[in-house]
Amino acid sequence: MRAEMLTSILRNLNGTSADIEACAVISIDGLMMAAQMPHGLDEDRVGAMSAAMLSLGERTAKELARGVMEQVLVKGDKGYILMTNASKDAVLTVVANANARLGLIFFDVRKAADEIGKVLV
Amino acid sequence: MRAEMLTSILRNLNGTSADIEACAVISIDGLMMAAQMPHGLDEDRVGAMSAAMLSLGERTAKELARGVMEQVLVKGDKGYILMTNASKDAVLTVVANANARLGLIFFDVRKAADEIGKVLV
Repeated sequence: MRAEMLTSILRNLNGTSADIEACAVISIDGLMMAAQMPHGLDEDRVGAMSAAMLSLGERTAKELARGVMEQVLVKGDKGYILMTNASKDAVLTVVANANARLGLIFFDVRKAADEIGKVLV
Repeated sequence: MRAEMLTSILRNLNGTSADIEACAVISIDGLMMAAQMPHGLDEDRVGAMSAAMLSLGERTAKELARGVMEQVLVKGDKGYILMTNASKDAVLTVVANANARLGLIFFDVRKAADEIGKVLV
């Protein structure tokens, strides 16, 4: 079952760091494909904001000659939101708190996104 | 002269790394306050995309409980665009190529944004 495989990848990703508060696989039109949201973030809201950021991120990368968009990171004083292309149809969104080590998060998220890409062929 | 001080900060930032292709100070409504764009990027385009990304980044940080937005990063396969709050009225946008070391860029850009904040009080 693909749904279970996606959930399993997300559960593993969540387990790599206590600073990851939530993660989700979202279709490029903003619909939830799988999610781990123990901290009560609203799934629809995460989906909608991810789709909007990605769409604008893609346009920004193109307009400013940065090639194909791979990731968008938003840093607030209370944490991070990292959106990563997982396949041509889906994105992996991770919400982390302010203690998160960005280098580690980038590394683990890239790995998880590759696994998701293999599930969603 | 503030314009000269801003230009000087941008010139220094550009000089910290050969991987920084362009940088600019942009008002939150997308107008150029100062710019170093030797690679022929269009100023209006950089201003417009920065303002749009920041506005959506701010909303995303707020909706997903990440506090006050500080930075937005877009990573493409040909490089990075990093937008950093410099003051309540202005943002520092940096366009870098794919060889850029993100840790160093973050460090230098944060320093330059603080200097810009002191000019635009």
